[in-house]
Amino acid sequence: MDLNCDLGEGYGVWQMGDDAAVMPFIDRANIACGFHAGDYNIMQATVRLAKQHNVLIGAHPSYPDRHGFGRRAMQFSEDELRAMLLHQIGALEAICHAEQVSLSYVKPHGALYNAMQTDSKLFAVVVRTLHAMNRGRAKPLALMTLAKLKSDTEANIAARYDVPLLFEAFADRRYEANGELRARQFEGAVLQQQAAIVEQAVAFARGDVIQAHDGAELRLSADTLCVHGDNPQAVAAIKAIRERL
Amino acid sequence: MDLNCDLGEGYGVWQMGDDAAVMPFIDRANIACGFHAGDYNIMQATVRLAKQHNVLIGAHPSYPDRHGFGRRAMQFSEDELRAMLLHQIGALEAICHAEQVSLSYVKPHGALYNAMQTDSKLFAVVVRTLHAMNRGRAKPLALMTLAKLKSDTEANIAARYDVPLLFEAFADRRYEANGELRARQFEGAVLQQQAAIVEQAVAFARGDVIQAHDGAELRLSADTLCVHGDNPQAVAAIKAIRERL
Amino acid sequence: MDLNCDLGEGYGVWQMGDDAAVMPFIDRANIACGFHAGDYNIMQATVRLAKQHNVLIGAHPSYPDRHGFGRRAMQFSEDELRAMLLHQIGALEAICHAEQVSLSYVKPHGALYNAMQTDSKLFAVVVRTLHAMNRGRAKPLALMTLAKLKSDTEANIAARYDVPLLFEAFADRRYEANGELRARQFEGAVLQQQAAIVEQAVAFARGDVIQAHDGAELRLSADTLCVHGDNPQAVAAIKAIRERL
Amino acid sequence: MDLNCDLGEGYGVWQMGDDAAVMPFIDRANIACGFHAGDYNIMQATVRLAKQHNVLIGAHPSYPDRHGFGRRAMQFSEDELRAMLLHQIGALEAICHAEQVSLSYVKPHGALYNAMQTDSKLFAVVVRTLHAMNRGRAKPLALMTLAKLKSDTEANIAARYDVPLLFEAFADRRYEANGELRARQFEGAVLQQQAAIVEQAVAFARGDVIQAHDGAELRLSADTLCVHGDNPQAVAAIKAIRERL
Repeated sequence: MDLNCDLGEGYGVWQMGDDAAVMPFIDRANIACGFHAGDYNIMQATVRLAKQHNVLIGAHPSYPDRHGFGRRAMQFSEDELRAMLLHQIGALEAICHAEQVSLSYVKPHGALYNAMQTDSKLFAVVVRTLHAMNRGRAKPLALMTLAKLKSDTEANIAARYDVPLLFEAFADRRYEANGELRARQFEGAVLQQQAAIVEQAVAFARGDVIQAHDGAELRLSADTLCVHGDNPQAVAAIKAIRERL
Repeated sequence: MDLNCDLGEGYGVWQMGDDAAVMPFIDRANIACGFHAGDYNIMQATVRLAKQHNVLIGAHPSYPDRHGFGRRAMQFSEDELRAMLLHQIGALEAICHAEQVSLSYVKPHGALYNAMQTDSKLFAVVVRTLHAMNRGRAKPLALMTLAKLKSDTEANIAARYDVPLLFEAFADRRYEANGELRARQFEGAVLQQQAAIVEQAVAFARGDVIQAHDGAELRLSADTLCVHGDNPQAVAAIKAIRERL
Repeated sequence: MDLNCDLGEGYGVWQMGDDAAVMPFIDRANIACGFHAGDYNIMQATVRLAKQHNVLIGAHPSYPDRHGFGRRAMQFSEDELRAMLLHQIGALEAICHAEQVSLSYVKPHGALYNAMQTDSKLFAVVVRTLHAMNRGRAKPLALMTLAKLKSDTEANIAARYDVPLLFEAFADRRYEANGELRARQFEGAVLQQQAAIVEQAVAFARGDVIQAHDGAELRLSADTLCVHGDNPQAVAAIKAIRERL
Repeated sequence: MDLNCDLGEGYGVWQMGDDAAVMPFIDRANIACGFHAGDYNIMQATVRLAKQHNVLIGAHPSYPDRHGFGRRAMQFSEDELRAMLLHQIGALEAICHAEQVSLSYVKPHGALYNAMQTDSKLFAVVVRTLHAMNRGRAKPLALMTLAKLKSDTEANIAARYDVPLLFEAFADRRYEANGELRARQFEGAVLQQQAAIVEQAVAFARGDVIQAHDGAELRLSADTLCVHGDNPQAVAAIKAIRERL
């Protein structure tokens, strides 16, 4: 079980979280590609920071929505989605190449990530775009997506296009009994206590059940655990999880 | 002597020139990468159009200045320049790769192009960035730059980093006797008559002298000829040049 | 019956239509405020052009969506809508004031305009925002909106807040029998023949019936007629309408 | 002697400083207008916060440079400068009007502010723009600018156009012996110790001499003192100044 975190999410002079504090404790850095956050300077600095800590690098592309931080639902044609993904992933990969590190996976952001969980046609567009990027590549780019109770649809699509999947669970988010994340607008969606966050992380790592919002037991199989580093408490929780794993 | 043209310079719903009318008559398409013009949709459509006409594809990166169309002089550190070039070139190359065509060269745009002609440190940053991109690449990306009377400095820098140079001359721009382009703010900077444009193009192609603004004879050695397709007259001039070459 | 037209819809170096050709033939200029199109330079130039031709000036605010030209449906809170309207209208009005002309009305653009036709809560937010702007103003800003078969809801809301309404009909758009505009994605949504456009314009001006898409007769009461000047044919149609009115 | 502070300088989800912590201790809020920082939501929220604390509101317009936070030197024509100022100030004033508070002054930001200190033609453009805005206004908008040893040029221009000036000094910046601010790229440009900041603030308030970087005594006459609230130490310094004044 490894730890992934969204990083490089500042813009210009504005910062978001403390990437330097988080990087030593994670395994995978999901780096924003400029559409919801990040810019060419921040992308380069974050790639260098990840390299320094031997952290795997993933692209974190989004809908084109800087003002809304990529959280607004938007409609695009397949061609538009393909082009916006290629643009963002390619920009980050060129920076990686110049720094002599590899890009290893892609994790869509925000509203795009959410839409992909319920719209299998959109999921397939993302997969086919990675398939096109993987042509001639020694090690294919993987796609990171949400661990669910049932992922047959996603697994079938990904298998057809030879795109490896990485299923992620969330250390600090409460789940519903059906295996979905409790929506952020409801109370209790985000775990606040470090002990509860660490406990849930350990349960995912061991393959144990976790407790859903209604108290039911839930077992989700995950390859990687998403952690957040937006504030000092969050960074402390990441360290605590790292020590326990 | 081949013909190159700046294309894909619309944005969103806004168009610039008629790319479809120009593409059949040129050899190299310099495609905007989103910083001064172009966006992911336009980049993808222009790459497809170039592929359809077997036109070589070059990246046309710029300072980050959409509102000023990349024509404003701006100051950046070497690190910032490197990152902005990688971002733009990488974004276009990923789209090329997905369309199964190659990116073959880079031609900086506007104020960045102009600064590179007089600031050899800036020229060297561009060359080193391409050098970093060329690592492990079968055929190196070339750099397109202005044909001058003396290009020793540029040639030496490029040779040190194994970056091939493509020198371009302008079919429709008047030159000063010292081999520089007559600045756009002065009268006579742009040739208006199709006959004069074709004549200058043919002279470049044959290696003949052209006539500078003050009447002096001038001989510039060029690999490629830049043409413009912003309006119907310009497109007609391109066709006329193509027929004569 | 007067003529209104959306103008100032370029951005930076990019143009949209030929404002100078249209301005002499219209009565009201709906000027883009920078969120879907337009920028401070274009706003100032368009205000000056309108003043020169004694054309009334309206603000044409939009959702914040330059890349999508304000045509994307987006969700905002009442507070966000109010702030984005105040921002855009205030920016244009300051330019008008410096040019010693008045701002006289507001016509929302694109997806915001469309949403306002079906969502009376959103319509009320726009009205209340104009009400707040009208405080202490000698002549209140009016709101331009779509002429419908039944406008009781809109009229009641506007009356409650003392905001005058201007109902507009479209010279070049086909209507459905229920009085709504035929949606652009369907064939026949836009009238192409100048004769048909002029005929519909004259019918609106006389208060005559027009023919809906299914052939039914339809009578809509309108204060102003929206015309478009995106291309030479459209400009010719505007002149023809002007001559007939 | 009153205290002014730059506020509302976040963008979208990104924050800059803690406006709510600073607002109770200042007299004038210089509110960003969206060109270097701020957006319609932040502008509205900051105006409301200022109103709540009875703080005077000033517009803080900038060159159009969000990515560079308005700190890049840029060249514009007089017409462009006028339009960009009107756009920003007008947008903020409409929001003020809707909240039933007044806009009372303008303080240009960053590179525009700096250019205005050395380029009297640019200073005059700003003054003439405010003059145009002040037409028909009961209480004219004032212009806040840097207190210098000699301000005759600025005073003459402002007097000609009836624009009141507000001279500001900086509590936490070291001055050169010639009365200019020590440039940020040099060591010692910013006072770090709270005691030194408070001491300099009190000296300005009393009309006493302050000590320049080279140790010389310097006397600057100021109407208002600029303080910064970017971090907890800065906020503590503001409180300490407020207590002493």
